[in-house]
Amino acid sequence: MIEQPVFIDNLKKVREKSPLIHSITNYVVMNYTANALLAIGASPVMAHAREEMEEMVSISSALVLNLGTLSNKWIESMHIAGKEAKKIGKPIVLDPVGAGATFMRTRTAHIIMEEIEPAIIRGNASEILAVAKSVVSTKGVESTVAPEDVIEIGKELALKTGSIISISGKTDYITDGKNVHIIEQGHPLMGRVTGTGCVASVLTAAFAAVNSDYLSASTCAMMAMGNAAEQAGKEASAPGTFNYKFIDALYNLGK
Amino acid sequence: MIEQPVFIDNLKKVREKSPLIHSITNYVVMNYTANALLAIGASPVMAHAREEMEEMVSISSALVLNLGTLSNKWIESMHIAGKEAKKIGKPIVLDPVGAGATFMRTRTAHIIMEEIEPAIIRGNASEILAVAKSVVSTKGVESTVAPEDVIEIGKELALKTGSIISISGKTDYITDGKNVHIIEQGHPLMGRVTGTGCVASVLTAAFAAVNSDYLSASTCAMMAMGNAAEQAGKEASAPGTFNYKFIDALYNLGK
Amino acid sequence: MIEQPVFIDNLKKVREKSPLIHSITNYVVMNYTANALLAIGASPVMAHAREEMEEMVSISSALVLNLGTLSNKWIESMHIAGKEAKKIGKPIVLDPVGAGATFMRTRTAHIIMEEIEPAIIRGNASEILAVAKSVVSTKGVESTVAPEDVIEIGKELALKTGSIISISGKTDYITDGKNVHIIEQGHPLMGRVTGTGCVASVLTAAFAAVNSDYLSASTCAMMAMGNAAEQAGKEASAPGTFNYKFIDALYNLGK
Repeated sequence: MIEQPVFIDNLKKVREKSPLIHSITNYVVMNYTANALLAIGASPVMAHAREEMEEMVSISSALVLNLGTLSNKWIESMHIAGKEAKKIGKPIVLDPVGAGATFMRTRTAHIIMEEIEPAIIRGNASEILAVAKSVVSTKGVESTVAPEDVIEIGKELALKTGSIISISGKTDYITDGKNVHIIEQGHPLMGRVTGTGCVASVLTAAFAAVNSDYLSASTCAMMAMGNAAEQAGKEASAPGTFNYKFIDALYNLGK
Repeated sequence: MIEQPVFIDNLKKVREKSPLIHSITNYVVMNYTANALLAIGASPVMAHAREEMEEMVSISSALVLNLGTLSNKWIESMHIAGKEAKKIGKPIVLDPVGAGATFMRTRTAHIIMEEIEPAIIRGNASEILAVAKSVVSTKGVESTVAPEDVIEIGKELALKTGSIISISGKTDYITDGKNVHIIEQGHPLMGRVTGTGCVASVLTAAFAAVNSDYLSASTCAMMAMGNAAEQAGKEASAPGTFNYKFIDALYNLGK
Repeated sequence: MIEQPVFIDNLKKVREKSPLIHSITNYVVMNYTANALLAIGASPVMAHAREEMEEMVSISSALVLNLGTLSNKWIESMHIAGKEAKKIGKPIVLDPVGAGATFMRTRTAHIIMEEIEPAIIRGNASEILAVAKSVVSTKGVESTVAPEDVIEIGKELALKTGSIISISGKTDYITDGKNVHIIEQGHPLMGRVTGTGCVASVLTAAFAAVNSDYLSASTCAMMAMGNAAEQAGKEASAPGTFNYKFIDALYNLGK
């Protein structure tokens, strides 16, 4: 587990270094994830044109590949950016949004796992199950499988791929295949705001940009999510208010 | 008209079944419409790649085709998704954003009406007029024609196409060609927040997913809009606050 | 400088005429800039399909070309729209987001400047420096060069191109090459909300649509930004709250 002082130390590093996080991500969450990165002290850039992928990767500190609202053009750009990031050693976070829901998404996740070898894969239980087994059908992008049921598969997946596996849900599980970190924080209203999982992925990239122990970085990100959600939940009883209170809480973390 | 208990019953069904609503929609409103669906108790998915259209339609309970920020690629995907939804009997809501403003949008609306035969067409007065007559020029995506002037054309359009016609404005008119439901609720600040019409369309799809009487479902959606807007209007005097209070109010409907 | 009564007069014109502002802009900020335009009293339309560019330009009062999340397809559409707007005399605002960060963005900005001759170029210091000199590397879309250092280059750029140059930062500088207007208003939290620069560009277009003295119009837009940010900053201590309070403040300007 990560102790609170270690989390605060990682948070300070994010704020001091303000790492530039390059996301190739879905249209639905771009604004929200950019605002979450700014709130916690990092810097966002969204870009997808293949012509500028290498340059964007070279000036960024981490890369997020998010499979929501996928298209073939964007998959190409993900591969160009991912290969460049891998070559020059920048951490890559794969968010397999909707893996298991369609063949296109499951296959794209598999190919990225094989060819890009992301440092971290973060998804909900059904998505992780889908990228691990490719045999379970999920209901869209919502999680319908309990994290507990997939943690063992997550550990196997981590050992086989070398990626940190971060499984989000009521309880979050983060594993390198040997150790399992468990986060019990959070709030039910997170499930009523679109893109909270995607925010978890960009925050994971922000911590990975300043902490090369990716198990620790992934856990810090989920602690940031959990802490901010609990704070927002104290001040909100409905998702519209929760939405902006959560951004406020990310900004106020540790203050 | 729909009585309040019938509306509440429909609302409960949305919350119990949490239908997955697949939108092929414009970039501007994706986040807002997804959050509106989550707030009322439904589930959103946004996807446009032709490679995954049939699968997305098959796991969804309703389809929304929204013509804002149109491109030829997306029109192709709308046709693939629309034909599949029609084939397997899933309700389709057409939102002809900006019909009348450009030839591309008006023509796309016409072709979708002819080939996809949506269960429901929801737009503002000028958009409905444009899809009905194709002779009136509108000012972008804003409504410049009073709903009262187009209700008769709306009834004719409903009879001719078999679609429910839902016309939004200060007063909302929903018709199957014979009956006309009138909703007088709402709030002027709705016109100062982008995407409230698009939200009406996705909520219409959510109710249509749980109520196959599409006149009733469309009316329930506009009642949800009107109720939530009135509640938000009580708590907000400017559009930034109204925006999130409206999401809160959708979440709190009937509570 | 622009006196407060002149600003208020321009603001009234925006609200009375409610000019339709056509943006070809990045995915991240579409919703936020549309809401900002609606809040101040203008009307937004976002459209990028080349098939409808001429029509959209013809019904709009001003055009915004924003280089964030660029792609070759969109660059084509920017040229079609830009040439049409130039031909029929509608003001064009270029926002060279991320110019200097990648060759694609810097080159696109240069070509648009040469061929489209925008009425106004609005960016942060490093972006303006990049479009002026094409020799400085910037860190993504964030400003890393002080406005003071580029104001002289801005003046030269204005004289050479005939465009108004609007440089945003802690202090804003707006120049036609001879006169320099300075705005000292604003709030640090603006830098923690994505798209505030993009909002400045669409507001610049809104004022330019009602005031053909583009130096005056650009200055009014930055005064609107500064005033609204100061008001929001009085009511918010974190960026989530600041975000919607800023929209409220745009709506309440001069009231």
